Amino acid sequence: MSVKRAKRKESVTCRAPVNIAVVKYWGKRDEELILPINSSISATLHIDHMCATTTVAASRDFTKDRIWLNGKEESFDNPRLQSVLKAIRERAADNEGNSHLTDCHLHICSKNNFPTAAGLASSAAGYACLVSALSKLFNIQGNVTDIARIGSGSACRSLDGGFVQWIMGEKDSGVDSIGEQIVDEDYWPEMRVLILVVSGKKKPVGSSQGMLRSVQTSPFLKYRAEVVVPEYMQRMLAAIKNKDFLAFAEITMKESNQLHAVCQDTYPPISYMNDTSWSIVRLVHAYNNFKGAVKMTGFGLIVPIEVSVIFGDWVEVAYTFDAGPNAALYLQEENVTEVLSFMSHFFPPGDDQDVKSFFKGLPCNTCQVSEDLLNAVSPMETKPGAVKYIIHTKPGPGAQEVSDEGASLLDENGLPKELAS
Amino acid sequence: MSVKRAKRKESVTCRAPVNIAVVKYWGKRDEELILPINSSISATLHIDHMCATTTVAASRDFTKDRIWLNGKEESFDNPRLQSVLKAIRERAADNEGNSHLTDCHLHICSKNNFPTAAGLASSAAGYACLVSALSKLFNIQGNVTDIARIGSGSACRSLDGGFVQWIMGEKDSGVDSIGEQIVDEDYWPEMRVLILVVSGKKKPVGSSQGMLRSVQTSPFLKYRAEVVVPEYMQRMLAAIKNKDFLAFAEITMKESNQLHAVCQDTYPPISYMNDTSWSIVRLVHAYNNFKGAVKMTGFGLIVPIEVSVIFGDWVEVAYTFDAGPNAALYLQEENVTEVLSFMSHFFPPGDDQDVKSFFKGLPCNTCQVSEDLLNAVSPMETKPGAVKYIIHTKPGPGAQEVSDEGASLLDENGLPKELAS
Repeated sequence: MSVKRAKRKESVTCRAPVNIAVVKYWGKRDEELILPINSSISATLHIDHMCATTTVAASRDFTKDRIWLNGKEESFDNPRLQSVLKAIRERAADNEGNSHLTDCHLHICSKNNFPTAAGLASSAAGYACLVSALSKLFNIQGNVTDIARIGSGSACRSLDGGFVQWIMGEKDSGVDSIGEQIVDEDYWPEMRVLILVVSGKKKPVGSSQGMLRSVQTSPFLKYRAEVVVPEYMQRMLAAIKNKDFLAFAEITMKESNQLHAVCQDTYPPISYMNDTSWSIVRLVHAYNNFKGAVKMTGFGLIVPIEVSVIFGDWVEVAYTFDAGPNAALYLQEENVTEVLSFMSHFFPPGDDQDVKSFFKGLPCNTCQVSEDLLNAVSPMETKPGAVKYIIHTKPGPGAQEVSDEGASLLDENGLPKELAS
Repeated sequence: MSVKRAKRKESVTCRAPVNIAVVKYWGKRDEELILPINSSISATLHIDHMCATTTVAASRDFTKDRIWLNGKEESFDNPRLQSVLKAIRERAADNEGNSHLTDCHLHICSKNNFPTAAGLASSAAGYACLVSALSKLFNIQGNVTDIARIGSGSACRSLDGGFVQWIMGEKDSGVDSIGEQIVDEDYWPEMRVLILVVSGKKKPVGSSQGMLRSVQTSPFLKYRAEVVVPEYMQRMLAAIKNKDFLAFAEITMKESNQLHAVCQDTYPPISYMNDTSWSIVRLVHAYNNFKGAVKMTGFGLIVPIEVSVIFGDWVEVAYTFDAGPNAALYLQEENVTEVLSFMSHFFPPGDDQDVKSFFKGLPCNTCQVSEDLLNAVSPMETKPGAVKYIIHTKPGPGAQEVSDEGASLLDENGLPKELAS
């Protein structure tokens, strides 16, 4: 009996990754259950570079349910948190092994190792982590992506690693609206991601509210969901399975552009990208044109942006933007050094920025950018400080339990080890 | 005989206005004849504030055809100029009164009283003016909007005053793709227009090239032309005829947003609006929300932009953007002083700008902006110099001949009176 009790967990700590969509989720058909109007696809970024960590503890000694986010206690009455807990308890009710949790209160402590609400999918990582930890605590087997989805739609894509699709499903109950791994994180080992965190204030319109407004007002959104996305889903699934970077990158950029087109078509319109974001877009196309010209002619022709369609089918780096000004660049390992150098040439650290902490994540080497490449860009000012920092990462594993006892965010009394200062 | 000869003109000077579309033209179905994929509507701005002036002269003494634009001689081989002249000569051939023009060469001199290529529809005014002057010189009667269209699509909307529609037509020849006045410039006397000329470099992608790229790559454009615009055309025609400012303003903004959404959906994407343009969009919605709140509650509630949908159906000023960062604001006379003051509060003249020349056109009075109104705007920095100047104007007459002899841009030898220094 004592052995059995020892195996029962009363505290679980998990880590969960951020994901960056390449076929975008924008628009719900059910606000309560968070059912989307189209399917979507993302890459799971490596948990070592950007992740949420969450400890959940259950105890009869706790006098009430409590939650701390990034060192600050928050209300437990958050409707989405309540919905997730309700779904967890319903599924756990079938499970006889949970008798020790009856009448317990929960303490939840979560933190991100990256800035929240900067358009870096913090809620996706956060809810994936919470659901992951709770499902371990309550001994729930099987797919819990539908529960994560109730917390934050795209969280259902952060439980698995590699490339993941969120199948929109058809049922009103949402049971078939789930995350499903396409390929794991080892399938496409050359793939890399650079996150360019762009300076700017907090986004003016949150993504939940933005997509609701789009559903209500954008003439384009329905057409996108019904006509455009189904085709892109098929092409993107094939591109990932075939490791076809050209197709992957082109659809990624077109999808990002279309998401922001829908935001612009919304009333009142929403702009998440700023002038720096647009400069990154132009630089990416200029870089691709240059590489295309080199490939086709042997020379790095000067290709003004205005005629960029000429080599527009050659792509070595792709941008994507979510509900904020930050860029995520998808590229292959061989291009990382050059693209990092190219981007940081135009967006060097500002005077108040520490060069050492400008590059984060995987090792970031830079090189001298060739004059031919710089000449291939239409005149563009360098903007020190416009990019706050760059994270170099790659597709990684999904949410996972951290077995190391020391990793718990709660102390032996169930209180946070660290509080916000 | 001598009397008859005296009446024959060998030199004509015309002025033609700029127009600003409220239902947008974006995309050609025929590049050569400039046939659009959808109909469009614009207001003709008053010729006194923004216009092109063109003198055309014909003489057997001229040794060749020559053209001067804004004081600089340009090539006469411009394909669009040649197309316009060909169409003029064909139509003039039926006209017996033109025998005195046989074997003549042409001298053409044209200038704008506003900066060219700043996204202010200079080519529309220019070609409307040229066609207007040539048709007078060659005694061509009847509708010449289809000839103006061959020079620059939207030029067909600058021959008439007031509000004008460009009917897309159906025929391959383009004879039914013409400009047609909806109401004249006296029909809606309260209507005013503020042009906010935004600082920034020349647009990176010209509108002709931009719309071609959209036709080739935007999944949204066809849907817009076939489904969205026909409905907006009907609603806008009714709004103008009924002087329904609310409907007029809402469609104007949605149309502008959708044009730029299509540009964003283009590949590579095109961004004509910059951060200043977006600040103007936010200020317009904040102003409308404030006025809506005052109207409905009697108080100027503080309405953050995030919840702007609440009073989103109340509109007292509408923005529209063409292929550049400049804003055109449509509003009624009673709001001009407040809106001018509100906008110039956030976008005052820069240190290097002359306050007197900051406001142009009709008289511009400013007032103290109420604290309530300023408080209704989410925090926004003032940006001195971000707006270069503001033109206050209103709908005005169409292209017209200037009978004053002194108005000719050419001297008695057929050479420009003024050349660029």
